[in-house]
Amino acid sequence: MDLSLDGAALTARLVDTPSVSGDERPLTDAIEGALRALPHLSVHRDGNAVVARTTLGRPERVILAGHTDTVPVAGNLPSRLDGGKLYGCGTTDMKAGVAVQLRLAAVLAEPRRDVTYVFYDCEEVAADRNGLLRLSRNRPDLLAGDFAVLMEPSSGEIEGGCQGTLRAEVAVAGQRAHTARSWMGRNAIHDAAAVLDVLRGYTPRQPEVDGLRYHEGLNAVAIRGGVAGNVVPDECVVTVNFRFAPDRTGDEAADFVRSLFTAWPVTILDVADGARPGLGHPAAAEFVAAVGGTPRAKLGWTDVARFSALGIPAVNYGPGVSEIAHTPGEYVETAKIAECEARLTTWLAG
Amino acid sequence: MDLSLDGAALTARLVDTPSVSGDERPLTDAIEGALRALPHLSVHRDGNAVVARTTLGRPERVILAGHTDTVPVAGNLPSRLDGGKLYGCGTTDMKAGVAVQLRLAAVLAEPRRDVTYVFYDCEEVAADRNGLLRLSRNRPDLLAGDFAVLMEPSSGEIEGGCQGTLRAEVAVAGQRAHTARSWMGRNAIHDAAAVLDVLRGYTPRQPEVDGLRYHEGLNAVAIRGGVAGNVVPDECVVTVNFRFAPDRTGDEAADFVRSLFTAWPVTILDVADGARPGLGHPAAAEFVAAVGGTPRAKLGWTDVARFSALGIPAVNYGPGVSEIAHTPGEYVETAKIAECEARLTTWLAG
Repeated sequence: MDLSLDGAALTARLVDTPSVSGDERPLTDAIEGALRALPHLSVHRDGNAVVARTTLGRPERVILAGHTDTVPVAGNLPSRLDGGKLYGCGTTDMKAGVAVQLRLAAVLAEPRRDVTYVFYDCEEVAADRNGLLRLSRNRPDLLAGDFAVLMEPSSGEIEGGCQGTLRAEVAVAGQRAHTARSWMGRNAIHDAAAVLDVLRGYTPRQPEVDGLRYHEGLNAVAIRGGVAGNVVPDECVVTVNFRFAPDRTGDEAADFVRSLFTAWPVTILDVADGARPGLGHPAAAEFVAAVGGTPRAKLGWTDVARFSALGIPAVNYGPGVSEIAHTPGEYVETAKIAECEARLTTWLAG
Repeated sequence: MDLSLDGAALTARLVDTPSVSGDERPLTDAIEGALRALPHLSVHRDGNAVVARTTLGRPERVILAGHTDTVPVAGNLPSRLDGGKLYGCGTTDMKAGVAVQLRLAAVLAEPRRDVTYVFYDCEEVAADRNGLLRLSRNRPDLLAGDFAVLMEPSSGEIEGGCQGTLRAEVAVAGQRAHTARSWMGRNAIHDAAAVLDVLRGYTPRQPEVDGLRYHEGLNAVAIRGGVAGNVVPDECVVTVNFRFAPDRTGDEAADFVRSLFTAWPVTILDVADGARPGLGHPAAAEFVAAVGGTPRAKLGWTDVARFSALGIPAVNYGPGVSEIAHTPGEYVETAKIAECEARLTTWLAG
């Protein structure tokens, strides 16, 4: 892998080495090999994750992280350049970001701050396979740092922190009866209207956290009920997803959801804490100054929360466009790749 | 099969010859053989249905019908007599009724009215397998008559006609969005609360039809919606079951359901017309006088509706108890079997 290529050409090479989640080995091998050829980096491998670090003894260390896997290929390989857009599986999410990481790793032999470059696997699948989570358990020392930039697609703007997410089931009980004599029972589906009324009456909180405006949300994401076509159902379960601002912990979010549905048993299925943007840190402030623009809150949950769980403030910043991620037509603007590399160079160059 | 046994002993024999829907052949063969030994009957076979008829040239003909199949055995065979109760799969639904049919067929060589005894298969499964429906298509001539008694469990009371039943889907549309930005979409599950509000606000009609009081009912029997745990769902479908009195046709029932849910697309899944009790017919009036008690409306749908569709008024009357049908602990009181036989003998004996 030739790291002297420009960012767009390097992105195309990365895209043309398919790496659907679970099949990242060939691409990881290529990345590891290219990085080991750089004498200013110390390189470590953990499964299909690679961590490369400068060790200049600088007083601060920052992390640039990106995942190498993609969602399944959807007839959109090999990559194709059309005008200023590079099309193909993983262009926007997030091999353009990975290309910028690799370019910086190759070029910045003596950055102003020590830099840790993290390339990890299995971001697009179930959390228990996530390579960054595995790294944080196996080698937390390799992830130590003062500030992290996760190079997820953010249209070249800074998206600070992320909201947390919680899923819970609200179970409405009834009493079975034959529908020919329905007054002998109690219809749990009918009674679930009261649960939906709570959801319809919910007003989202939009708090400011560390200077960024978040926007919470509470939604039914599933509903199920029914025994048979002639039976008054005795259960209806509504699954809700609560997206909460990072000024609440997961426990506080769970308490809030329970407080809304006190009339019914609530089962918390899973919770992922959010992440505060942490833009008050000096390294973050210089990052914002170098990148420009006005940081905005990240509403979707991302792996920045894994850095936050390690006590490291983190932001999302990358050249891709999140709205077209996971679509067959995903692309990245090549100018955005160059811009991203230039701005990070401004921030990090010695 | 020895038709000189008393009704309870004959019921036990029938129960101990298992005949789960689709496996009625051995029992049907035994019934056919016993009936063919009776010179006063003309016997016909259609698949696993048997029709036996007196042909005395009486001015009226009545039909006694029963199904020979049962729901799956639930560890409740062989039959067991305990006190005055006979336990076992099919005791109440409805081999006790079949035993009474067989006893009458054997004993009443010269009944006051011509009698058609119908024994049919596959009542407990999907309508398209129903043996009475098949007979009504293959040999409607064998089902001709002035009045029919379906010997379904009715606790020894007359249950006239039956209500119709209709199932429909009401589909609520929304617009997908990521739950982290839920205000970009429209949650179809939340909006389905308005469908449930219609159901909660519904007041059942309780009309009197041919002197019997029916009781309608409208219930959600299923609800489904949801795309993924992080997606605002764009569809929620509520399946409703409308049980309607026999003074409405199926078409009128469908119009009524559509009129309740004009805000959404309604798909009628299936409709089965009900049956008027027809107790004004002279044979029916004499039947009521012989059996005694006060006829009540049948609320659940039964195969009386198939006779009604042939223009034959029909009632449900049998020794079993419908509330315990299909339960592992089903039983029939032996005294009820004898009582049922005695009363029908009073009605039919020459």
